Amino acid sequence: MEGVSAEACSLAGHLQLGNLIAVWDDNHITIDGDTNQAFTEDVLKRYESYGWHVVTVEDGDNDLEGIAAAIKACQEVKDKPSLIKLKTTIGYGSLQEGTHGVHGSPLKAADIKQLKAKFGFNPEESFAVAQEVYDLCHKVSAEGAAKESEWNKLFAKYGEEYKAEHDDLARRQTGDLPEGWEKNLPVYTPADDAVASRKLSEIVLNKIYQAIPELIGGSADLTGSNLTRWKGAIDFQPPSTGLGDYTGRYIRFGVREHGMGAILNGMAAYGTVLPYGGTFLNFVSYAAGAIRLSALSQIRAIWVATHDSIGLGEDGPTHQPIETLAHFRALPNCMVWRPADGNENSAAYYVALTSKHTPSIIALSRQNLPQLEGSIIDKAAKGGYVLHEEENADITLASTGSEVCICIDAVKELAAKHNIKARVVSLPCWEVFDAQPKEYRLSVFPDGIPSLSVEVMSTMGWERYTHEQFGLNRFGASGPYKDVYKKFEFTPEGIAKRAIATIDFWKDVPNVRSPINRAFQQLI
Amino acid sequence: MEGVSAEACSLAGHLQLGNLIAVWDDNHITIDGDTNQAFTEDVLKRYESYGWHVVTVEDGDNDLEGIAAAIKACQEVKDKPSLIKLKTTIGYGSLQEGTHGVHGSPLKAADIKQLKAKFGFNPEESFAVAQEVYDLCHKVSAEGAAKESEWNKLFAKYGEEYKAEHDDLARRQTGDLPEGWEKNLPVYTPADDAVASRKLSEIVLNKIYQAIPELIGGSADLTGSNLTRWKGAIDFQPPSTGLGDYTGRYIRFGVREHGMGAILNGMAAYGTVLPYGGTFLNFVSYAAGAIRLSALSQIRAIWVATHDSIGLGEDGPTHQPIETLAHFRALPNCMVWRPADGNENSAAYYVALTSKHTPSIIALSRQNLPQLEGSIIDKAAKGGYVLHEEENADITLASTGSEVCICIDAVKELAAKHNIKARVVSLPCWEVFDAQPKEYRLSVFPDGIPSLSVEVMSTMGWERYTHEQFGLNRFGASGPYKDVYKKFEFTPEGIAKRAIATIDFWKDVPNVRSPINRAFQQLI
Repeated sequence: MEGVSAEACSLAGHLQLGNLIAVWDDNHITIDGDTNQAFTEDVLKRYESYGWHVVTVEDGDNDLEGIAAAIKACQEVKDKPSLIKLKTTIGYGSLQEGTHGVHGSPLKAADIKQLKAKFGFNPEESFAVAQEVYDLCHKVSAEGAAKESEWNKLFAKYGEEYKAEHDDLARRQTGDLPEGWEKNLPVYTPADDAVASRKLSEIVLNKIYQAIPELIGGSADLTGSNLTRWKGAIDFQPPSTGLGDYTGRYIRFGVREHGMGAILNGMAAYGTVLPYGGTFLNFVSYAAGAIRLSALSQIRAIWVATHDSIGLGEDGPTHQPIETLAHFRALPNCMVWRPADGNENSAAYYVALTSKHTPSIIALSRQNLPQLEGSIIDKAAKGGYVLHEEENADITLASTGSEVCICIDAVKELAAKHNIKARVVSLPCWEVFDAQPKEYRLSVFPDGIPSLSVEVMSTMGWERYTHEQFGLNRFGASGPYKDVYKKFEFTPEGIAKRAIATIDFWKDVPNVRSPINRAFQQLI
Repeated sequence: MEGVSAEACSLAGHLQLGNLIAVWDDNHITIDGDTNQAFTEDVLKRYESYGWHVVTVEDGDNDLEGIAAAIKACQEVKDKPSLIKLKTTIGYGSLQEGTHGVHGSPLKAADIKQLKAKFGFNPEESFAVAQEVYDLCHKVSAEGAAKESEWNKLFAKYGEEYKAEHDDLARRQTGDLPEGWEKNLPVYTPADDAVASRKLSEIVLNKIYQAIPELIGGSADLTGSNLTRWKGAIDFQPPSTGLGDYTGRYIRFGVREHGMGAILNGMAAYGTVLPYGGTFLNFVSYAAGAIRLSALSQIRAIWVATHDSIGLGEDGPTHQPIETLAHFRALPNCMVWRPADGNENSAAYYVALTSKHTPSIIALSRQNLPQLEGSIIDKAAKGGYVLHEEENADITLASTGSEVCICIDAVKELAAKHNIKARVVSLPCWEVFDAQPKEYRLSVFPDGIPSLSVEVMSTMGWERYTHEQFGLNRFGASGPYKDVYKKFEFTPEGIAKRAIATIDFWKDVPNVRSPINRAFQQLI
């Protein structure tokens, strides 16, 4: 019933994934009772409409040969995924068989007894395993060991004939990247052009795709906006379509964010590919369920999340994230990156690609961002660092992504017009910053200096780092991005105004304590 | 392609919604280009599998009569929803017709010119409207006014014959609830039994469903767990199924959270019903897209979100929300309630039901919660209040839901073993609390007293209210709920330990400033 399966299965049909066989345990029961209360569609017809091959096993409770035959038939269909409808009885043999009573509760003692008797077990014995079961398990185990040993020999022989391919596959299985790949990450200086960070992301993909052959990805129908496709990429498509082939490393996911997230998880779990997917940051939320599983299952999947704020402009509030960063920053084991320029973007990719057990969401701008003085890949890779230092500073401005450069302009405004010295902290990834030693974090947010965060979305959570917050705890507005930023005062003047209010408010407090100081540390 | 439409349309087919006609603008183009890159399923066959009636209009660009005939044919099908496949050309008439080039960019001047010439307009005129268009609009407008006037007369006449029904419908259209409905909300005293808050929610539904005839809702296949069905409710089902009828006010949504969210929005937008939907709190995230639209569109939809923490026990981390409250607390115009007992639950329902322009998520426990001394509906309806006061308190403990009663036990522990005086604040809804006058909020979180938040999930955002946070910034664990709470030290002792650490850490700071004090207020 869940839409995510509709998205994934429609795409699987389009891609003609002949190696995929799904078994549907059709017991006609959900938690609420009989499926006919809410689910009376013709499922096989639906899968046929997706381009799947479908088979039915009438007696899924007993017909083991029928099941084996169905699997065999499906394996022979090479150009379509297959669905086996296995008609079964939930709680088969129990006194409650065929009812939702057996879904979530343990069987009663009397029921277990009659069930054991029915299937030829001793009803008086508990946790008893017959010798013939042990024997069968040992036999199967030995067979498996023999097959594994056989495969290992074959793979070793393969290594003799095809050393490069063998070593590549062996390396991929460890999750390590090819040696030296990181030399491809671009490094910028302030003399370089202002570029949208989505474009910076595209540049990285173009520079690393050859060095990292396991990199495979695509977009949920926003390729030209997400800039997720490197030059000359081949689409992963059935050759018969004439649109690509199965060597292709670019996937057209369609408008299916949740399905894409689940597919990224599946590919990463398989273990020899490193998947990424693109959409607008605001629509990453559609895949919340899949990303939660990435984090819980410690899966390396990367989201290229462009159009990351009200800076996307005219599309307006339906497309402008407010709560999204807070949502995923609150998710354990999930890195949310929001790079401010080219070096920070390289840092985001470096950490995302080398974190084997953590998913990443890289939030990227639609609008151009200048290359900043003081941004350094190694520093950004710590999740947060001092981008602009001042001796005897009056205030710390902390920010991420497209607002960092406005903070830099606010520093000039504060110095020129108000004789105020402001330092600037860039905090592209909280999850990574929180893992740094406290001493380092305190050097970034030192005691004695009041601080103000600047980020054009929900202020939720910034209180961990700064004394005051400037954000957007309401929905955005539609208009050219500069007008929208101006409307909400995300300008050097608007930031300066709030910096002055912050200094004024905290001036009575002697040696202001940094929020980094806490009675006990519990963030990660 | 989006799964949410698959969920909603499958249910619409099951429910045989003959009044529903969907028009599919099938122009074969998505943002990435031709739909054949990702979407080659047989859509009409899929809709037939859902039980829909389907029609095709071959020339949707020109065949206006064909479109009218198709709509008429669909109106005649009373027991099935209908899908009209309208084969069209995107950017019809433009030089770029039939390509994705016309999706997101304005047409070039030369293209507009030839397009106007092609359709018989003067290519040199801009923003020109012909007199015949004005005439037609005026004619249609007059016809509409006449029809409205006719309907108003009919409705007035209906009021003469069926006064109660007429007044009920008129009232529903305003969004106001029937006078006196709130007298049905239960009030509790500490002598009353400990009850799970999901059960408290069920009690409220049972008490109010007769007083509020527009209340309609259901569950995404968790009826027995969410306790969303009042006694004697009739299921909303096609009469032919024998499972209910169309007077039914209980909806079996199936395992379709996102579809349920979208359906709640649609029903609320229609304006004469007040919809609610149930699922586990953790799975509310599946409907993030729909809830975002509830908030943005100012829609009153209520989520009954049970099993709201690691307190659900054995289902484990896949079912235990960590980031969910932070996610929806960061969403503008969305109330997240987490009542601690019966009175707070009545307050949550009171505010949720009377907030005409705001969705609510009511987070409810699986485990029993005692009725608390000091909990009062009116106070809880402010979003936060002092549940337990102490003179010259050493610390404020702030909490929500199932942890509030543990804080009360921690107060006793702190007094008995450590001679520490702790006050307790219950904060069932941040969104509502943040809207209270600053003076009130400061009385709840006063200057001079260090504070500690206690909530068994992400601590994100609690820094707004308290100096220190005790939460769970990691995934939970599977086990009986008492064991899981103990493992993570959500016990009176565990809270007391952190309260002592908090007091100790803040003792050097004279007259500790409450986090409510801010240089500028920007939370709502």
